[in-house]
Amino acid sequence: MTEKAEAMPKGDTARSRVRIVLVRPRGAGNVGSVARAMKNMGLHDLVLVRPSLRRRFWATAMAVHAVDLLDAARTVQTLDEAVADCGFVLGTTCRRGPYRSRARTPRELAPQIVSFARSGPVAIVFGPEDHGLSNHDLRCCQQLIHVRTESAYPSLNLAQAVLLCCYEIRQAEFDGRGVGSQPARAPAGDVEFAYQKFEAALLRIGFLNTENPDHIMFAFRRMFGRSGLEPRDVRILLGLARQIEWYGRSAATFEDVS
Amino acid sequence: MTEKAEAMPKGDTARSRVRIVLVRPRGAGNVGSVARAMKNMGLHDLVLVRPSLRRRFWATAMAVHAVDLLDAARTVQTLDEAVADCGFVLGTTCRRGPYRSRARTPRELAPQIVSFARSGPVAIVFGPEDHGLSNHDLRCCQQLIHVRTESAYPSLNLAQAVLLCCYEIRQAEFDGRGVGSQPARAPAGDVEFAYQKFEAALLRIGFLNTENPDHIMFAFRRMFGRSGLEPRDVRILLGLARQIEWYGRSAATFEDVS
Repeated sequence: MTEKAEAMPKGDTARSRVRIVLVRPRGAGNVGSVARAMKNMGLHDLVLVRPSLRRRFWATAMAVHAVDLLDAARTVQTLDEAVADCGFVLGTTCRRGPYRSRARTPRELAPQIVSFARSGPVAIVFGPEDHGLSNHDLRCCQQLIHVRTESAYPSLNLAQAVLLCCYEIRQAEFDGRGVGSQPARAPAGDVEFAYQKFEAALLRIGFLNTENPDHIMFAFRRMFGRSGLEPRDVRILLGLARQIEWYGRSAATFEDVS
Repeated sequence: MTEKAEAMPKGDTARSRVRIVLVRPRGAGNVGSVARAMKNMGLHDLVLVRPSLRRRFWATAMAVHAVDLLDAARTVQTLDEAVADCGFVLGTTCRRGPYRSRARTPRELAPQIVSFARSGPVAIVFGPEDHGLSNHDLRCCQQLIHVRTESAYPSLNLAQAVLLCCYEIRQAEFDGRGVGSQPARAPAGDVEFAYQKFEAALLRIGFLNTENPDHIMFAFRRMFGRSGLEPRDVRILLGLARQIEWYGRSAATFEDVS
């Protein structure tokens, strides 16, 4: 079911810069269905992180006329690699938990996704079929996204979840919502580097618990992630980390001396 | 992916009176996926018109935790039977033609579907996977409904089409009821207090230029301002300021001593 020839040249849409990232997918059929759903909605950029797919013929079977998209999909070994060039990285979640609050719906986020995609690549990250994204995976994500479903059966099939995200993005682009471009975000690789320096500095001054530094670091990641760091913000954060680090080291040295 | 326990008693929603009718479906896996998608979105009433399903185990496999819905599905011999008690019947279409103009989208029609469903059953009719509804089938339908997709690959999988319709209906039902609240933001006074402590700490470690501390502080205010600080974020920021301050003071003391 469908209608209306709403074609745009492949490279000219914001959607063409929205990447779907599947982390450790297991169902070949699901990956094929994802490819079909993406092509139905005008997305093209599929990346698989360490897939473990058996019976690959199911992928081709379920992709139907989206085998081209499936063939063009890239495979990488880490999520960091998959999103390194992306200015905005969204992680899907189906669970609640301390690091999973503040999730918003695809409908709420779609205009923002379209705006960011006008100036550079945006990634939406989906976890494995059985458990979803781990807390470690979510580190890389600046914004959580979830589809509201019934508590009686909340868990969507992977391709269904991808479809709903792609559908809302397509709608937002056609609605003219998300008009006006956002300032360019810093690439995720640079942001991650700055987080690591910041974490090291906070460990140095004993602000983070060495047993569980992630607890507070997640709060910072969330704060800065919601904010969306621009290149200059990242430089400032790096500078601050350096300065804290210096003071932490000096104090330690003086303590040793005294 | 999902969230929010938005359960309603099964019989109390408009959605529970929206029937999904599959006319002559052929893929058992598709029928299972349809059941799952319906249950994900809170619909329960599935009717099959003259299905010709082989390998029925696929239906159960794809339904996963919606086997109850699948088991409760009724099978009838004609579309007329399937929709006889419905006050509003919508037919899905993926083709254009003399009987197929005036199709509208699920988003446009969802509020109307919900309104009708408040007073009695409404049916949305989907055709066979290969050819869709025939003109004869469309006789029974008062309104055409279609999902907009890309001309490069317009044809949605059956379960995907059902999902999008159910999703829009669920959204429409919830939209009227102010679902989805934003987390509470910290009061501006607390945020300002934290900014001042943070600024003092950064001055202490020489990260800000004493001549013009605002230059960098504005960048932080903008970062955190875009983010929207919650009460816990403010506490973390205050804690960090205290810790930096302590290290800055210690280092200075040691310098004085040495």
